[in-house]
Amino acid sequence: MTLPGTLHYFPAPTTQAFCSQCGNPLSRLVPPEDNRERDVCNHCGAVHYRNPLIVVGTVPIWNDQVLLCRRAIEPRYGKWTLPAGFMELAETTAQGALRETDEEAGADVTLGSLFTVLDVPRVNQVHMYFLATVNSERLDPGPESLEARFFNLDEIPWEELSFRTVFHTLQAYLQSRASGQFATHYHSIE
Amino acid sequence: MTLPGTLHYFPAPTTQAFCSQCGNPLSRLVPPEDNRERDVCNHCGAVHYRNPLIVVGTVPIWNDQVLLCRRAIEPRYGKWTLPAGFMELAETTAQGALRETDEEAGADVTLGSLFTVLDVPRVNQVHMYFLATVNSERLDPGPESLEARFFNLDEIPWEELSFRTVFHTLQAYLQSRASGQFATHYHSIE
Repeated sequence: MTLPGTLHYFPAPTTQAFCSQCGNPLSRLVPPEDNRERDVCNHCGAVHYRNPLIVVGTVPIWNDQVLLCRRAIEPRYGKWTLPAGFMELAETTAQGALRETDEEAGADVTLGSLFTVLDVPRVNQVHMYFLATVNSERLDPGPESLEARFFNLDEIPWEELSFRTVFHTLQAYLQSRASGQFATHYHSIE
Repeated sequence: MTLPGTLHYFPAPTTQAFCSQCGNPLSRLVPPEDNRERDVCNHCGAVHYRNPLIVVGTVPIWNDQVLLCRRAIEPRYGKWTLPAGFMELAETTAQGALRETDEEAGADVTLGSLFTVLDVPRVNQVHMYFLATVNSERLDPGPESLEARFFNLDEIPWEELSFRTVFHTLQAYLQSRASGQFATHYHSIE
């Protein structure tokens, strides 16, 4: 899609027609010593793999409240989410989770342990959420959030959450609070 | 690099010069509403993000032995590794770990829990290893392995391992055997 006021569209293209190395058209074929079709350039020889992406975020807790952000971007404009986003190059998952928490909520948090690892094969993503303790009530939501606020744990807007990974992570958090066990959860969302 | 007998080179290119959507040259700039430089096409508007890759594998255990594969490919040709490789589209991390164990060792395993999640920011990767129980002593190493065999846990070739993530995962496994605690380990390898 093209955003108003810009020539650039989002999200990133997921198919490719031309070689990023030499600009010639790509072919779809099984490269030598491979076992599945790839986008291959018969001009320069480049093989252009496509692989799943990692989304990193936090479960930011302030006393008995959880910090959620209301999305100012598609998909799920206006829905509530835990702060999260695509992991960038040259960072760790923990650093990415902290960065997204800062960018989306402007929250000062101390990172805890890795809490959920969630496969979402339908969209070729793996989501990873870390526990986090909020250090100050002050928030400063960025341009990707309409607002950011704390919710009591019995007032989480379950019907207005953005993604199943957010739903699953918040459910797991409540169960962990009840059991006192905060080990990493792994789950596939089919 | 170009492999003997093929026009196609590996690994995949990590920089890009031309737009995969329209074939025009790319520019390096900060897109609107973004906060870092991306490869952008000023002709069609596509933004070409680059993100970390996921490597998935297993710790395959047969009685008190661990299954390792000797690499038939670069990097680390000839070194010993746990079966692992790049996660593909349309699969879960667990499915990818099983697939790699089959492709590299031809081993019939039953997957256990997620065991290690290891950041390797220097190469823009996150490695994820699952515990696995080997169901049959029969192995059938694929073209990416020179051989596959079981090692007693006190005979692991520590000096001949391929990657720090393999070293770390095997160390964590020995510690978990000693403690009886097999919770997911998260660690960043800087």
